Amino acid sequence: MSKQTTNISWRDRLHEIIYEADTPAGKLFDVVLLIFILASILLVMLESVKTIDAKYHNILYYGEWTVTILFSIEYIARVITVRKPWKYIFSFYGIVDFLSTIPMYISFALAGSHALVALRALRLLRVFRILKLARYLGASNQLASAIKASRAKISVFLFAVLIAAVIFGTIMYLVEGAEHGFDNIPKSVYWCIVTLTTVGFGDIAPETALGQFIATIIMILGYGIIAVPTGIVSAEYTKASGDQKKKFSDEELEHQKSLQLNTQCCVNCLSETHQDGAEFCHKCGCKLHYD
Amino acid sequence: MSKQTTNISWRDRLHEIIYEADTPAGKLFDVVLLIFILASILLVMLESVKTIDAKYHNILYYGEWTVTILFSIEYIARVITVRKPWKYIFSFYGIVDFLSTIPMYISFALAGSHALVALRALRLLRVFRILKLARYLGASNQLASAIKASRAKISVFLFAVLIAAVIFGTIMYLVEGAEHGFDNIPKSVYWCIVTLTTVGFGDIAPETALGQFIATIIMILGYGIIAVPTGIVSAEYTKASGDQKKKFSDEELEHQKSLQLNTQCCVNCLSETHQDGAEFCHKCGCKLHYD
Amino acid sequence: MSKQTTNISWRDRLHEIIYEADTPAGKLFDVVLLIFILASILLVMLESVKTIDAKYHNILYYGEWTVTILFSIEYIARVITVRKPWKYIFSFYGIVDFLSTIPMYISFALAGSHALVALRALRLLRVFRILKLARYLGASNQLASAIKASRAKISVFLFAVLIAAVIFGTIMYLVEGAEHGFDNIPKSVYWCIVTLTTVGFGDIAPETALGQFIATIIMILGYGIIAVPTGIVSAEYTKASGDQKKKFSDEELEHQKSLQLNTQCCVNCLSETHQDGAEFCHKCGCKLHYD
Amino acid sequence: MSKQTTNISWRDRLHEIIYEADTPAGKLFDVVLLIFILASILLVMLESVKTIDAKYHNILYYGEWTVTILFSIEYIARVITVRKPWKYIFSFYGIVDFLSTIPMYISFALAGSHALVALRALRLLRVFRILKLARYLGASNQLASAIKASRAKISVFLFAVLIAAVIFGTIMYLVEGAEHGFDNIPKSVYWCIVTLTTVGFGDIAPETALGQFIATIIMILGYGIIAVPTGIVSAEYTKASGDQKKKFSDEELEHQKSLQLNTQCCVNCLSETHQDGAEFCHKCGCKLHYD
Repeated sequence: MSKQTTNISWRDRLHEIIYEADTPAGKLFDVVLLIFILASILLVMLESVKTIDAKYHNILYYGEWTVTILFSIEYIARVITVRKPWKYIFSFYGIVDFLSTIPMYISFALAGSHALVALRALRLLRVFRILKLARYLGASNQLASAIKASRAKISVFLFAVLIAAVIFGTIMYLVEGAEHGFDNIPKSVYWCIVTLTTVGFGDIAPETALGQFIATIIMILGYGIIAVPTGIVSAEYTKASGDQKKKFSDEELEHQKSLQLNTQCCVNCLSETHQDGAEFCHKCGCKLHYD
Repeated sequence: MSKQTTNISWRDRLHEIIYEADTPAGKLFDVVLLIFILASILLVMLESVKTIDAKYHNILYYGEWTVTILFSIEYIARVITVRKPWKYIFSFYGIVDFLSTIPMYISFALAGSHALVALRALRLLRVFRILKLARYLGASNQLASAIKASRAKISVFLFAVLIAAVIFGTIMYLVEGAEHGFDNIPKSVYWCIVTLTTVGFGDIAPETALGQFIATIIMILGYGIIAVPTGIVSAEYTKASGDQKKKFSDEELEHQKSLQLNTQCCVNCLSETHQDGAEFCHKCGCKLHYD
Repeated sequence: MSKQTTNISWRDRLHEIIYEADTPAGKLFDVVLLIFILASILLVMLESVKTIDAKYHNILYYGEWTVTILFSIEYIARVITVRKPWKYIFSFYGIVDFLSTIPMYISFALAGSHALVALRALRLLRVFRILKLARYLGASNQLASAIKASRAKISVFLFAVLIAAVIFGTIMYLVEGAEHGFDNIPKSVYWCIVTLTTVGFGDIAPETALGQFIATIIMILGYGIIAVPTGIVSAEYTKASGDQKKKFSDEELEHQKSLQLNTQCCVNCLSETHQDGAEFCHKCGCKLHYD
Repeated sequence: MSKQTTNISWRDRLHEIIYEADTPAGKLFDVVLLIFILASILLVMLESVKTIDAKYHNILYYGEWTVTILFSIEYIARVITVRKPWKYIFSFYGIVDFLSTIPMYISFALAGSHALVALRALRLLRVFRILKLARYLGASNQLASAIKASRAKISVFLFAVLIAAVIFGTIMYLVEGAEHGFDNIPKSVYWCIVTLTTVGFGDIAPETALGQFIATIIMILGYGIIAVPTGIVSAEYTKASGDQKKKFSDEELEHQKSLQLNTQCCVNCLSETHQDGAEFCHKCGCKLHYD
């Protein structure tokens, strides 16, 4: 039995290092992991630059294998230190961790799997977990509730933009035609969105007087309607700030803030947001600290 | 007389399926119609892509005829199931339904009527009715009243932008001249609007030092003045939200919401926005349900 | 004496037609003038299009002379129907009226005075007086006071943008150099403003990796800082609306609105904004109506 | 001892001229310095224009030496008139003054030090001190606190934009490939930021149908998310204005304003923001005026 206690304690100590950041070892782990993720993204980028790849192919290749092996070890460690591994494996970050580890193994099996580069770029999403960015953003809940409240309106708004793009795109296709770069309706709709969003690449541009006149209308439309989503988010955000002030007293806001800075993570159910002095998980009752 | 009752009941049942969405058949009809509209838009787009049209011309041609015949049947069904057909025919959606159905018939009579493609793109507007998007947008009336309140100001503002574009366009025509792409004043005004709205195609760009200096002023002007319409909509929207909160109690807002989700549509006068338990139309007194 | 009364009455009747819009003749005069101004702008534009000028040179030439003569008559009429002609001549609209009338006379005296086209484009400013746009805009005084309140901050802000453009422009000149289109610092600063304001012509674009990296920073800076002027105007406008609501009762707002729709214009001092039932000018005491 | 009094008085009188602007000599000094700074920036710019440099090389060269020597004298004067020279030398403006003076001396010692042009462009930052722009901007503290409050959120937001750019950039690299200008991932990410920020140079543009479709998504994303930072700054600024109104009475705001317009600068500790009638520095107790 003594052995099992040690075993639990060993897994729990590792859990504290990997999942939490309030011990020196836990903080060090996060910093090292952050450096490896950014390094691996740099590797992906440099590998695509032909002049660099030609010169340093071997370094990049071994670097990628080092990162892959380290990520594999980390993935296995994350799985074994959690009491309910399936909960981690099928969580959002669990899937991201898995997908960003496997590309190298697949490319070993299948030759020329070029598209795996995109999977490797997914590693960037892992930065969100380490920096707890999502939690930091949602902290005051103001921005989240502002976006939530304006989501429906902005969706309908963007849908209206798309319909305008299709109708104006069809008209431009008829007016300009293939000889001026408006080869077909999908391309013409693409041009229309480029114009409405004020991006304006200029790879395709109207050349007839009528086409330029219609383009003018599209541009002024695009310039004017950007005010609508901006106004909505701005107003909803103002409202959300005001509502929160009324609902929560200063003490409660202080309490919320402390929750968000606490990095405790339950070994059993992976739930976060624990209070500063908490000894047991508020979701499953499992003990949080094993000293 | 019994026959006529059956007849009315048959038309009313069809009316419920076509115009409303609270029976399983009504919902199925809406979903099927939505799929056909999107499919017909896809047909219009694919037909314009030469490589696809060359390969699958027949499939696209028969597809278009299938859609046209189905839309024709639907149009006739809409007309005969309404008590006052003219009211439907000359309503906004009635005209859209008609225009998006006829192109194929006209192209049958008149050869080479290329411009009818634009009419077929109008079919997208029908999506608005099915998804009841307009109603959904106007739901809270906040956005609608914000845009209504800022409409006059934004119009005058856009008019000022146009005058600035004409005056700056004339100056740029004098400064750059035809040798740098500013062929004439209308084209120069077009370039000016491209710049003021921060689209910036780059098909025409100033090349003299003076022209680039004036372009700088236009760009900073365009960058600065976008703040004005955005500020107006934002402030009006905040005000509209506040006003509505004061005017309506929570119960009334709840009531408004239920009105907007109800899909009942009177067989006699086509008015919508009925209360959830309503048995008779609140506009013409006509019975709503025939069970 | 009887003669002089008739004379005054004749001048005053003309004054009412030209300067005011509450008699049928006054309204007709405004509509006709509006049409002539827009027609004259159209003439300026069409004249610059070579293919049109080649074909219809004579029509455009005689059209321009017709407009010039009519504007001359109108200018003289405006001068003689006002009691203090110098007040009109040196007012903003008086100068605009004069400048938009003379170009044709000068071109008659001086051959090849190409630059006069710009003067002719100034005619568009006259539309502002006819539509009383400036007054309409400033009506609620909210937008005016919002822009006034944010003017200083936006100026300093734009100045900061300019300094950033000069410093980044110098850096880009050093990084990219003349071989990639960054010929000299002024051109590099021009490119920098094109990028900061998100216009992005693409006539000049960074080609080295370092240049593209710095361009990325400039673009994100430009994308981020547009939030500042927008936020300022939006907040000031919200404040201005709130302040006005507190300061003025509904009756006073109603009164202000009636002032702004009244088109009476004093024959003596040209002051506008008279009350609906006013018989005498509130500035100089001169009688307003001679029936 | 009498000599030392004269000496102090001489240094203090110079200090008043150089650092303050409430004597005629002080104002004149500021205006002259402003002219020299703008002239020196103009010199830097003109020197980079080859056609101008070829013609007026000598004038530009001697002009630069004149400016350098004058700035050197000013720098020495600033150092000796302050009681604690090190405090000035290592202050922000002290470093800017030093860096914008030395380039000419270095280029005298080291031949071909091209990069020093960037240092000379730093002179523009000195304008901020003369116009007291930073103080003017921060005056009401509203904008400052709005930006401070939204800084964290905007940072996380921009970080999310960067991650989106890397992931979409990788996808575009795979879809378009080197043959359409997407040579490698860093360049593809650069294009992605050009598109997300709605700059749209058009030096690189997607050419395949799939690439254009993904570009459409990126553009709509970029068009939609600009609403978020704008909404945040706008709402925070509204809140900051409201908070300040509550915190400070009108008298206190008046007092704050007078502080900000006062140009007194302590000879001992260089602290500014003194009250209008103050005789002694409120930070170190040193006498402010020596009449």
